[in-house]
Amino acid sequence: MKNLIPILVLLLFLVSCISKSPTLTEQSKSETDPLPNWSEGSSKSVILDFITKTTTFGNAGFLPESDRIAVFDNDGTLWSEQPMYFQLAYAIDFIKKESTNHPEWKKTEPFKSLLEDDIKHVMEGGEKALVEIIMASHAGMTSEDFQKSVSDWLDSATHPKTGKPYNQMIYQPMVELLEYLRANGYKTFIVSGGGIDFMRVWAEKAYAIPPYQVIGSSIKSKYEIVDGEPVIIKLPELNFFDDKGGKPIGIHQHIGKRPVLAVGNSDGDYEMLQYVTAGEGPRLGMLIHHTDSIREYAYDRNSHIGKLSKGLDDAAQNQWLIVDMKSDWKNVFNIK
Amino acid sequence: MKNLIPILVLLLFLVSCISKSPTLTEQSKSETDPLPNWSEGSSKSVILDFITKTTTFGNAGFLPESDRIAVFDNDGTLWSEQPMYFQLAYAIDFIKKESTNHPEWKKTEPFKSLLEDDIKHVMEGGEKALVEIIMASHAGMTSEDFQKSVSDWLDSATHPKTGKPYNQMIYQPMVELLEYLRANGYKTFIVSGGGIDFMRVWAEKAYAIPPYQVIGSSIKSKYEIVDGEPVIIKLPELNFFDDKGGKPIGIHQHIGKRPVLAVGNSDGDYEMLQYVTAGEGPRLGMLIHHTDSIREYAYDRNSHIGKLSKGLDDAAQNQWLIVDMKSDWKNVFNIK
Repeated sequence: MKNLIPILVLLLFLVSCISKSPTLTEQSKSETDPLPNWSEGSSKSVILDFITKTTTFGNAGFLPESDRIAVFDNDGTLWSEQPMYFQLAYAIDFIKKESTNHPEWKKTEPFKSLLEDDIKHVMEGGEKALVEIIMASHAGMTSEDFQKSVSDWLDSATHPKTGKPYNQMIYQPMVELLEYLRANGYKTFIVSGGGIDFMRVWAEKAYAIPPYQVIGSSIKSKYEIVDGEPVIIKLPELNFFDDKGGKPIGIHQHIGKRPVLAVGNSDGDYEMLQYVTAGEGPRLGMLIHHTDSIREYAYDRNSHIGKLSKGLDDAAQNQWLIVDMKSDWKNVFNIK
Repeated sequence: MKNLIPILVLLLFLVSCISKSPTLTEQSKSETDPLPNWSEGSSKSVILDFITKTTTFGNAGFLPESDRIAVFDNDGTLWSEQPMYFQLAYAIDFIKKESTNHPEWKKTEPFKSLLEDDIKHVMEGGEKALVEIIMASHAGMTSEDFQKSVSDWLDSATHPKTGKPYNQMIYQPMVELLEYLRANGYKTFIVSGGGIDFMRVWAEKAYAIPPYQVIGSSIKSKYEIVDGEPVIIKLPELNFFDDKGGKPIGIHQHIGKRPVLAVGNSDGDYEMLQYVTAGEGPRLGMLIHHTDSIREYAYDRNSHIGKLSKGLDDAAQNQWLIVDMKSDWKNVFNIK
């Protein structure tokens, strides 16, 4: 009996240790801010409340994991899009490099203006010129060759304002939001007007979004055996334009289910937010408003790139959250 | 000092308990067969060896989780496809039900033969007739209406041979393989000639494959606001035919990365297996050979549905595994 006393004391001590020790999850919840680069305020509260509401079992807004689908535009929403879409910068560099093999480009628009560095004139050609340039930077290549070409470009090209590689110009607050959503059982998808294969080269490293969760514009391709090797060859023909009303179609084709959260930054994202937020149950639509001319760029209603006008007009009525980049984000980039 | 002895004894006992107790994973590995409906033999060994090799850190064939992508045909690979593709059975029932609203169908093929129950004549119309029938069973509906229509059909229609709902006629050994791959960090995708939206209605429940991991043939659609509600409306125009050389294209469009494991059952899967197994590193191509006329169906070279001829000819040279349904599978279905 006497010998049992220290054993009982030890057992009580062990039980008390176990019951007092907080789990790792509890510790993280109380001590760590999941969105450290979002300033305290109503935007951050709306986001955190939505995630808590949809992931707390028993809450009226609770969603099973299979319904936790969030979609994000890319250009101007996850990374910068000024002074021109980064994919256009890639395509221009590619076309200049390849121009010796294409003497006809010197005589035909939009290539002529491009080779003469008259980017303003190129942009006046609108969507049609943009698509032609993007297609010329793909066509005839195998999918592997294209990946390598983009990857090599990212290793060497730098942004004219920051002098940093383009794939460092991603928004740190958005990376945090993507991570926090995934930690709460959400699947995160990109739904961008940009080229699907262009984004897939670097999106996994930048955002931890795998290639099969990237949706974008695409050109047609064909399957062929070349020198005994099966390859995918890119063709100079538009397959799908993932912008405006194309975004809900792209979502339907690739995801097959209406997401519950959508984030964009321009009127090209209007229909995506409209489609997502019109569904039943809890919904959240967000627009990133570029208000920070010092740390990034300030533009909206009159911008050629990323024009945001109708979205601003209708945000209140649609109950969409407008994120003010200048006041809502503590840091914009996490540039090394 | 005397009091410390029982404490030390207790501590030794606790340490010995902890070190001896097998973890749950070890227990499962030693006591549970992950593929209970696969007979012991070379097919099962090849599959288990491939999964072990690609998921054992330090092994020459080890793959990071981001590369563990497996693709599966559906009709004849994950569920039955006889005596006709199940989606055709759905479309026939739909067209018969809708025929009063379409008097023109009585005069035009392939609808005329279909309404006269002359399915043999319908099938003689080949791919073109099939596509017309499938499209007629979608067009003009919203994506939600179509989902409901398929779901209602599955609740009432039964297979002519077994008398069971079509979505119970899934192959239990394949369900086990899908589960075991996922337990080992693989992502599982369907890549089928069947309709993408038809499969998405029931694939998550049947195979635990979410809608965004289903790839299939599709018709075009448009985004519209109807009575104030944003909807996706299906159009009577083919968007993508996910068969033969279309399968690698569908994989490239949706996954954006070459998978390492592909399973099919017909020559329509030839290019998918060719594309997947030609990549570098460890690869596995498998063809399900329908050899069981008693428990399922026996067919290959001369079948109109699921013809398998070139695949059988080239399997050895391509190092593809031929799974013999009769001898390799202990049970075919898990019918309730």
